[in-house]
Amino acid sequence: MFNKILIANRGEIAVRIIRACRAMGIKTVAVYSTADRHALHTYLADEAVCIGPAPARDSYLNTTAILAAAQGTGADAIHPGYGFLSENPTFAKLCRDNDIVFIGPTPEVIDRMGNKSQARRTMMDAGVPVVPGTKKGVHDVDVALEQARTIGWPIMIKASSGGGGKGMRVSESEEDFADMFNIAQRESVNAFGDNTMYLERAVQNPRHVEVQIIADNHGNVVALGERDCSVQRNHQKMIEESPSPLLDADEGLRRRMMDDAVKAARAVGYTSAGTIEFLMDAERNYYFMEMNTRIQVEHCVTEMVTHTDLVGEMIRVAAGEPLSFTQDDIVLRGHAIECRINAETPEKNFMPSPGTISQMHLPGGNGVRVDTAAYDGFEISPYYDSMIAKIIVQGRNRTEAIAKMRTALEEMVVVGVNTNLDFQYAIMENETFRAGLADTGFIEQFLAGEV
Amino acid sequence: MFNKILIANRGEIAVRIIRACRAMGIKTVAVYSTADRHALHTYLADEAVCIGPAPARDSYLNTTAILAAAQGTGADAIHPGYGFLSENPTFAKLCRDNDIVFIGPTPEVIDRMGNKSQARRTMMDAGVPVVPGTKKGVHDVDVALEQARTIGWPIMIKASSGGGGKGMRVSESEEDFADMFNIAQRESVNAFGDNTMYLERAVQNPRHVEVQIIADNHGNVVALGERDCSVQRNHQKMIEESPSPLLDADEGLRRRMMDDAVKAARAVGYTSAGTIEFLMDAERNYYFMEMNTRIQVEHCVTEMVTHTDLVGEMIRVAAGEPLSFTQDDIVLRGHAIECRINAETPEKNFMPSPGTISQMHLPGGNGVRVDTAAYDGFEISPYYDSMIAKIIVQGRNRTEAIAKMRTALEEMVVVGVNTNLDFQYAIMENETFRAGLADTGFIEQFLAGEV
Repeated sequence: MFNKILIANRGEIAVRIIRACRAMGIKTVAVYSTADRHALHTYLADEAVCIGPAPARDSYLNTTAILAAAQGTGADAIHPGYGFLSENPTFAKLCRDNDIVFIGPTPEVIDRMGNKSQARRTMMDAGVPVVPGTKKGVHDVDVALEQARTIGWPIMIKASSGGGGKGMRVSESEEDFADMFNIAQRESVNAFGDNTMYLERAVQNPRHVEVQIIADNHGNVVALGERDCSVQRNHQKMIEESPSPLLDADEGLRRRMMDDAVKAARAVGYTSAGTIEFLMDAERNYYFMEMNTRIQVEHCVTEMVTHTDLVGEMIRVAAGEPLSFTQDDIVLRGHAIECRINAETPEKNFMPSPGTISQMHLPGGNGVRVDTAAYDGFEISPYYDSMIAKIIVQGRNRTEAIAKMRTALEEMVVVGVNTNLDFQYAIMENETFRAGLADTGFIEQFLAGEV
Repeated sequence: MFNKILIANRGEIAVRIIRACRAMGIKTVAVYSTADRHALHTYLADEAVCIGPAPARDSYLNTTAILAAAQGTGADAIHPGYGFLSENPTFAKLCRDNDIVFIGPTPEVIDRMGNKSQARRTMMDAGVPVVPGTKKGVHDVDVALEQARTIGWPIMIKASSGGGGKGMRVSESEEDFADMFNIAQRESVNAFGDNTMYLERAVQNPRHVEVQIIADNHGNVVALGERDCSVQRNHQKMIEESPSPLLDADEGLRRRMMDDAVKAARAVGYTSAGTIEFLMDAERNYYFMEMNTRIQVEHCVTEMVTHTDLVGEMIRVAAGEPLSFTQDDIVLRGHAIECRINAETPEKNFMPSPGTISQMHLPGGNGVRVDTAAYDGFEISPYYDSMIAKIIVQGRNRTEAIAKMRTALEEMVVVGVNTNLDFQYAIMENETFRAGLADTGFIEQFLAGEV
């Protein structure tokens, strides 16, 4: 087992990883930007190293500084958390070249799944369902239009090297196709220096259902059920739950999705924790969307219902240990929901509300988990994402979980910055959400008063 | 199911019960003393009724005021929590006479188990092991001495009506017997108006191991594993865990204790949640000590490892529902530990440290549960017990649970009053405790530097 792990991240996930290390008796090294001098992760780690000023590119994305910190402190592994360097194959390779274990999959796998059209081809070859569309990249608008006719509208036009919504447009019909293709392609060239595009049929009002998997270096791959993350705004998840209300009455469908997720992981020789994201249409057809080759923000709901420690397991797997559980051990118990509590102003288009938290009271009790890096006096910096805390609750069933979340949201107090607590509470009260019918368009309709 | 429940308690257990009610969609009524005007439970409940001034006898023990509050608010049930009126058969009967459901066993059962020598006889008759001793009450010192000779020294002399250590003395040998008997009997007469005594062989360096049970009105009784509460000071528990490190390697012993606990519950026609407390000697012989006919402070460790909601289940059972689980559903998963965090000064003989909490930071994360009624600005009143919070952690095994507790204790910050955080931390570091060898004499030896 590792002696010392450097955590190349900040905020609640850095705290999460430090706690996992401590539970296992592993020493920890925090890195921090000057803006994060008083951040909780710097206090909780055994050692803390400043790696530069606030903009992430000068600190949390500064691979040289982070590697130097690892070498200087004698860390034998690096956990990248989520965001920042977690899906950067160059950094993963740099770690390997410097004999430091990168706690995640290999650089080759990160790279392979990072290229969206390559990942799509890999999944098609592995027999995992993908949205009907082009198999190869396309560069010419006329060729693309011809292919579009065989797929049918509406159509997603996507950049092969894309990510974060860049180089992506929806074409509603043949009339707007050429315009949308050209716009998306121009964006792709500007953002990624690549004019390779691909087409997919646009799934209407999809649900976002993802499967958590974890794999070790001994050929074991286990799927840990699914998460429903349909409640999102601009592709930013707000609420996540496990199991998905859609799959609760359809164990066969769950089993097929889990099998496909395991198949996907095996197809690329995956190791560590990862997530296969699927889109699901109204007929419950599901399609591979992408694979996240890292721990996710919403991993906690899976930990609650499967009674596992995914971050601890990632560390064990990275150290060469076999998985501590088998597929048969994974039984989903009850229902878990996570709300992301952000410092933002929902009434002003969710504008971030940085500032100092003068007072904070956290909910608690049976089946309530709080993951936060905030404290009384902590400053939510404008440099980083505005998440204050994740509130995760578990009930015997979804109704009870929603009731517990309502109570937890009411109990939570944050003074000094605006939050989305009331907004999240309103969702818990919403009939469409309560009925388990929210799809990825829910927030938009909710804001428009249509649901 | 009940429409509205009055919680006849304060502090963290009142908050715990309110949360359980809310998860079930039941309205809540808090009662509070004038000293508790700003207590958390008054804010969290749907309604709150002042029932008198601070000394408990004028408020939380004021049965008339509490019943009036229940009737005035239309509550159809009362949850008594622990302490106060929770084991008062007169109050339970008063509720019944007023058509308000007392969430607990019947007044007859409370009464029967409340009389220690009667409970002892009941258990002997049911075939549950009790400490060798007198079967009937004894009033005369000479008769008692004769019986003592057949039991053997050291001997516990106990008041039949006793409780809380009153009317209880240890006789080390024949020489001190008469003196000790007379002292104990005088105490009993003064405290309980009853000169009935009984004798038990004193178990040397016992462990305190208790079994949680719950029973419904349909004849179902389920045992939820055991708790080890050996770490206590003056019969006041400080740390509780489940499972007991003693029983971890002896599933047969655990099964026998659970079977005996179920037998005990059946023998008295028990309903609701209850705890059978056993003493265990070095040879792992166990003896019935007493039954607590209420929810206990330490119920949370059982909830963690059995994945249940004991307070919710008490409510369901009181409403006439059958238990929502069977004995086969109860599997102990991992290891849970609870530390009671008190406002006290361990260096000054654990003298309470009342005052205002000016700042508080709570631990969190995977497998960490916090139950508290405190908040920034909350006043720990000298009128009530000094508990600030219960920290409960769960790990994959005991070693991991201890590591998690250490982290949680380090993370927790309380400013404004003294606490036992460092003392609890020192126990987590202690080799005897870590080896699972602490018996009920541990704290004394720990304070004396002997372990």
